[in-house]
Amino acid sequence: MRTLVIYDISDDRIRNAVAEVCKDFGLSRIQRSAFLGLLPSGKRKDLIEKLSRVLGESAGNIQIFVICNADLSLRTIIGIEYYEEEGADIVI
Amino acid sequence: MRTLVIYDISDDRIRNAVAEVCKDFGLSRIQRSAFLGLLPSGKRKDLIEKLSRVLGESAGNIQIFVICNADLSLRTIIGIEYYEEEGADIVI
Repeated sequence: MRTLVIYDISDDRIRNAVAEVCKDFGLSRIQRSAFLGLLPSGKRKDLIEKLSRVLGESAGNIQIFVICNADLSLRTIIGIEYYEEEGADIVI
Repeated sequence: MRTLVIYDISDDRIRNAVAEVCKDFGLSRIQRSAFLGLLPSGKRKDLIEKLSRVLGESAGNIQIFVICNADLSLRTIIGIEYYEEEGADIVI
């Protein structure tokens, strides 16, 4: 079961803090505002709690999806994948 | 089966064109750069083809996920949901 986190946050400080939380939980950045990774359901709950605290009452939206292996196999990537500090690579 | 489209595109013109394609396919905007909606698999293929053409050789990344009902039931939304031309509403 993968966990996908997508967020839409204007405030740089909070947006960066959300990214740091996702990294702390071992998720991989797949876009500037999207992280994906394997996470046991207990850890997913911890992540959701942490992200709720980071966003607090600020404007913005964070959505956490669970993606099973069958769904993941249907994922399609168009264009250049996000690689932090490593440049970029064309996937499709 | 829901289709989730998330994108990371710097060029305003192309980003807006991607949003228009998603709307044309009946998807709902859930974030500034994310759309979700019901789509038969044939239509999903058409969508992917159209989005590939819109992005072309330009910089950017579009990812299309399939989300089954079981996965969708585990979706968590934190903060204010995106409502086009309708203001915003607090969900969690």
